[in-house]
Amino acid sequence: MNQNIVTSLDQQLRSRAEKVVPGGMYGHLNARPLPPGYPQFFAKGEGCHLWDVDGRRYIDFMCSWGPILLGHKYPAVEEAVERQRQQGDCLNGPTERMVELAEKLVANIPHADWAMFQKNGTDATTSAITVARAGTGRRKILVARGAYHGAAPWCTPSVVGVTAEDRAHLVHFEFNNIESLEAAAEAAKGDIAAILVAAFKHDLSVDQMLPDPPFAQRAREICNEVGAALIIDEVRAGFRLSVGGSWEKLGIRPDLAAWSKAIANGYPLAALTGNDRFRDAASRIYVTGSFWMGAVSMAAAIATIDELLATNGIAHMERIGTRLRDGIAEQAMRHGIRLRQTGPVQMPLILFDDDPSFAKGARFASEAIKRGVYMHPRHNMFLSLAHTESDIDETLEVTDVALARLASEYRA
Amino acid sequence: MNQNIVTSLDQQLRSRAEKVVPGGMYGHLNARPLPPGYPQFFAKGEGCHLWDVDGRRYIDFMCSWGPILLGHKYPAVEEAVERQRQQGDCLNGPTERMVELAEKLVANIPHADWAMFQKNGTDATTSAITVARAGTGRRKILVARGAYHGAAPWCTPSVVGVTAEDRAHLVHFEFNNIESLEAAAEAAKGDIAAILVAAFKHDLSVDQMLPDPPFAQRAREICNEVGAALIIDEVRAGFRLSVGGSWEKLGIRPDLAAWSKAIANGYPLAALTGNDRFRDAASRIYVTGSFWMGAVSMAAAIATIDELLATNGIAHMERIGTRLRDGIAEQAMRHGIRLRQTGPVQMPLILFDDDPSFAKGARFASEAIKRGVYMHPRHNMFLSLAHTESDIDETLEVTDVALARLASEYRA
Repeated sequence: MNQNIVTSLDQQLRSRAEKVVPGGMYGHLNARPLPPGYPQFFAKGEGCHLWDVDGRRYIDFMCSWGPILLGHKYPAVEEAVERQRQQGDCLNGPTERMVELAEKLVANIPHADWAMFQKNGTDATTSAITVARAGTGRRKILVARGAYHGAAPWCTPSVVGVTAEDRAHLVHFEFNNIESLEAAAEAAKGDIAAILVAAFKHDLSVDQMLPDPPFAQRAREICNEVGAALIIDEVRAGFRLSVGGSWEKLGIRPDLAAWSKAIANGYPLAALTGNDRFRDAASRIYVTGSFWMGAVSMAAAIATIDELLATNGIAHMERIGTRLRDGIAEQAMRHGIRLRQTGPVQMPLILFDDDPSFAKGARFASEAIKRGVYMHPRHNMFLSLAHTESDIDETLEVTDVALARLASEYRA
Repeated sequence: MNQNIVTSLDQQLRSRAEKVVPGGMYGHLNARPLPPGYPQFFAKGEGCHLWDVDGRRYIDFMCSWGPILLGHKYPAVEEAVERQRQQGDCLNGPTERMVELAEKLVANIPHADWAMFQKNGTDATTSAITVARAGTGRRKILVARGAYHGAAPWCTPSVVGVTAEDRAHLVHFEFNNIESLEAAAEAAKGDIAAILVAAFKHDLSVDQMLPDPPFAQRAREICNEVGAALIIDEVRAGFRLSVGGSWEKLGIRPDLAAWSKAIANGYPLAALTGNDRFRDAASRIYVTGSFWMGAVSMAAAIATIDELLATNGIAHMERIGTRLRDGIAEQAMRHGIRLRQTGPVQMPLILFDDDPSFAKGARFASEAIKRGVYMHPRHNMFLSLAHTESDIDETLEVTDVALARLASEYRA
C-alpha cells in the first residue's frame, strides 16, 4: 500500500520499459503526464475495480479509457468469449458471428443498413472517410478543430512525422458554430466528401459540449445540399450514450458512423456502419486486416450489446453518473471550490475554474488516487454498468476529502 | 460432405451477409475471388485442420493467411491466454507482459534496441514510416512497385476512395533491381526518409523472389549514404522465416522493422522494432489505439515465441515445406505439368506455366479443396508447426489426383 517506496514493482517496470520501449511508454495510456501517485502498470480488473502491479486497488473511472462498458471481466461476456475461443477465433474467413453481429448492429442502429468490422477506432474513422470519398468522388473532409478522430497520419494530434499532404484535404470548423461550418463548406465548395463530427465535443482539457440541435441540423442540411456524407464519430460515445446513435435524440441521422471502444467490453473491435446510399462505395474500397474477422471479439460484442440492452445499462450509467455529479457539485459548493462538470453524466469531465495550468485538477486527482479512486484530471472519464451506488458513495467520501484539501491549499 | 447443396449453411450465411455487409464480405478473406468449392464461413480450427460451417474438414495451408504459426489452438499459447484473461486484458495501462515482450523482441532481434506494439500490420508499417520521417525530417518513402504494405490510404492496393496526396511521397522501384532503386533514390534526392521493402517479394499472382544479396546490400548502403531508414516489412514473413529478421542471413540489418501476423499465433498484435538511431524519433510521434496494450495478445506472443524457439519450429516448417515442394515437383514432372514453386518452402506459392488467366491454378485448387486440402491458387500459402509429415503425405495424395486431372484436361 506504500506507493512511494522506490522499489515498487511499478518503478521497476518503468525502469525496464525505459530500456526497451521508446520513452518508456507511448500513446494515451502513458502515465507520465498524470499527476503524482498514478501507476503505469496494472495487474488486473474486476467489475469497477482495478489493481495496479503493487496490489493497490482503485475504483476505476477510466474503464480502460472507454472499452470497459459493463465492468471488467463481465461474466456473460467472458462466457461468450470462452465458448468462441473453444471453437476458433482467427480462421481463413469469418465465422457465423460476423453475420450475427452485423445483423444486430443493423437492427439496433436506425441509420445502419450495413456494417463492416475492423480493430482500431482509427480503422473505422479512416474507412469512413475512404467510403465517403469513394461514394462522392470528392476529397475534402470537414472536421472540427481540436477533435480527436484517431492516431493515423491524417488525424493524429501530433504532426511529428506527418507530412502536409496527409492533411491536405481537411477543412476545419468550430464545433457547434454554424457560421464556421458554413465557412468551411464554402471553402471546400464543389469538393466536399464528408462532414466528420464527434458524437459530442470531448476534446482534451476543455469543457465538453453536447451538439446544439440547430448545429446538428445544419450539418445534415449541408450534406444533403451538396451530396456529402455526414459521418458521426461514435468511437468514444457509442454504446455509452446510446446504442442507436448519439444524434438520434436530435432527430439527426448520419450516413456513416464509426464505432469501437465499448463495443465489445474491452475485446479489440471497431465497426463502420452506413446507409444504402454508401453501400456500393463501401463494397468498392479495399480495407482489411489480419485479425479483423477474429470471432472472439465479435462474440464479445454480441454479448456486450445483448447485456447492455437487457440490463438497460445506459439508464443505470445515467443514474449513477447523476449521483456522482450531484455529489461533487454539492461538495464543491460546500468547500467554496468553483469547478465545471460538463458533458454526459456517464462520461464525466471535471475542470476547475481559474486553473490555467491544471494545477488544481492535478491536486484533486492526486488526492483521489492515493485514496483509491482512479480519475483523470483533464480527459473525460467513463462510468460502467458495474459502478453501484455504494461505489459512488465511497468515491464521494474520497472526493470530499480531496476537495477539502484543495480548498485549504488554495485559501492559504 | 455435400458441398453443392443449395441449403448449405455457408450459402445461407452468404445470403444473410449480403444484406448487412457491403458486397457480402470484404478484404483478403473474401472468398468470392476463389475458385468453386471454397467456403466463406468457418466454424473451428485445431492444429493444421480447419472446419467450415458445414462440417467439412480441411488440411489448412493458409493458416488464417499467416497468423497461425504453431497450429490452431496450440495448447501452450491457449494456456498463457487463459491465465492472462483471468487477470486482465484491456486496463488503464499496460501490464508486466508489455515489458516482457519488448525485452524478448530486443533479445531475439539483432537490430532491435526497442519495440512498440499495435494491432494491425498496417499500424506497424504506418508507424515505421512515421518514425522514419520524424527521425530524418524528410518525406519520401521508396517502395517496391506492387508490394503490399497494408490497407491504409497510403498503401492499400486499390485507389478507390484514396486521394493523390495520400501517396504523394511514395517513390517506386522494382524489387531486386539495383538500377531502379538507384533511380528512385536519385528522384527523391535530398528528401529520402526511408526505403521500405518486404522481407522477400511476395506479391499476389507473381513468382515469389528472395532478396538478392547485392540488392539488399545496396539498399543498406543508400540508406547509410543519405541518412535514411532501412525499413523491412516482416509482417508476412516474420517468425516463419526467422525470429531475428529475414535479412540477417544476408548480413543486412534494418533500422526499423514491422511485425504482425504470426507474432501471437492468431491473437491480434503488431510490433514495430527499431534501433537506437530512431529511438528518440519513435518517442516523439503520437500513435495509439484503444486495445494496443491488451495483455492477452502479449501473453500469446510471449508463449508463441518461446514455443517457436523451444521446438525449433522454423526448421520443422522448412523440413515439411521441402517435403511438400519436392513431392509436388515430382508429381508435376510425372504428369507432364509445368509449374513453378517459388519463395521460401514454408511459404509456398504454386503457379502454372502458360496460365495467364490462372485457370489452371484455379482448377488445381478446386480439385484440392473438394478433397479436403485448403490451398490458394495465387497467393502464397503458409505452413505451421502443426503440419506433420503425414499431413504432407495426405496432401500429396490429393495433389497427385488434382495434377492428374489437370493433365488430362489440358491434354484434351
